[in-house]
Amino acid sequence: MDYREVDSTSEYVCRLDHGADWREEIESFADERAIDAGFFYGLGAVQDAEIWFYDQQRQEYDAVTFPEPLEMAACMGNVSHLDGERFAHTHAVLSRPDGTALAGHLNSATVFAGELYVRAFDTHLERAHDEPTDLDLWEL
Amino acid sequence: MDYREVDSTSEYVCRLDHGADWREEIESFADERAIDAGFFYGLGAVQDAEIWFYDQQRQEYDAVTFPEPLEMAACMGNVSHLDGERFAHTHAVLSRPDGTALAGHLNSATVFAGELYVRAFDTHLERAHDEPTDLDLWEL
Amino acid sequence: MDYREVDSTSEYVCRLDHGADWREEIESFADERAIDAGFFYGLGAVQDAEIWFYDQQRQEYDAVTFPEPLEMAACMGNVSHLDGERFAHTHAVLSRPDGTALAGHLNSATVFAGELYVRAFDTHLERAHDEPTDLDLWEL
Repeated sequence: MDYREVDSTSEYVCRLDHGADWREEIESFADERAIDAGFFYGLGAVQDAEIWFYDQQRQEYDAVTFPEPLEMAACMGNVSHLDGERFAHTHAVLSRPDGTALAGHLNSATVFAGELYVRAFDTHLERAHDEPTDLDLWEL
Repeated sequence: MDYREVDSTSEYVCRLDHGADWREEIESFADERAIDAGFFYGLGAVQDAEIWFYDQQRQEYDAVTFPEPLEMAACMGNVSHLDGERFAHTHAVLSRPDGTALAGHLNSATVFAGELYVRAFDTHLERAHDEPTDLDLWEL
Repeated sequence: MDYREVDSTSEYVCRLDHGADWREEIESFADERAIDAGFFYGLGAVQDAEIWFYDQQRQEYDAVTFPEPLEMAACMGNVSHLDGERFAHTHAVLSRPDGTALAGHLNSATVFAGELYVRAFDTHLERAHDEPTDLDLWEL
């Protein structure tokens, strides 16, 4: 396992804007606060969601869309740099009125309400192409 | 996105009482330690659960109850003030013996076993009525 | 609720090795960095998974295996000592190509890709047999 020891430089509690995109909100915030590495955790509700599933054989993402109101039961992700821009790698667990859960890599979702804890680190995390997985993974 | 930069004042690892209510345990703890703002993360098992789903059209919560043993696969939430009392906004991902997942806003659940990490902040977070969503959201 | 106030001694961002076992990676890392107590949070993808469900009546774990590619939508867990060894109590929320979620106590999973945040505490957490649940719970 590759790793990097980090120190935290700042911590934030955030309220996502109603009607905005969940992931874009996080990336704009990272830009605004110049967060080059961090982790975030959140909860709330969304009005739709596009979840990506990585096909490990074909090494491509497939999108599934859920055009419906959903609880954001749990959101976990991190901020790092990809192709010169800050990227919020965002995973989400969503749920329906009957309690059944959906989950995966969150590409987009319209915020109904959202609460976030963000923790920024004193380092610069960069993603680069990884051969075995064809994903952009951290260089540590 | 509205936000507030915070500093952490204290951190705790906790063991929830067998037979107690999951959310009440967290709120009692927040009262005992005078936590006015914080985030928490947990895992364990429960013996039943009441999950709420917010109907974004009707702007009301609907309850779904699961009177059965469930794993608490992941619990994420925060502490802030609502109507003069400390409130633990608690989301949960639960699962059944076959591994299928349930998730949502956790109103109550009887603790079978529970482990928690709590992080308290040096601020006072208050909830107030939000017009567009009819929810009690943070004033930041 | 029993609890212990802790201070953080170190924080890490980690990249799990492709092809390794998810939980063993965390336990090896805890050994390498001499982490005697901590919490971790992660996301990524796995190629299979063995989830355990604790039968609260029979007080025994039952295993369910998912021999398929899955997203690791969210992983949450902690490090403490059990029977003289570091143990990573690991819970996971996994998902399938159609977005449906699986969750529970993660015994093992082959890492396809994995990103972790680990936070180590300045304490020694020990598990011991708990009579009412027949589980190994923290002595706090």
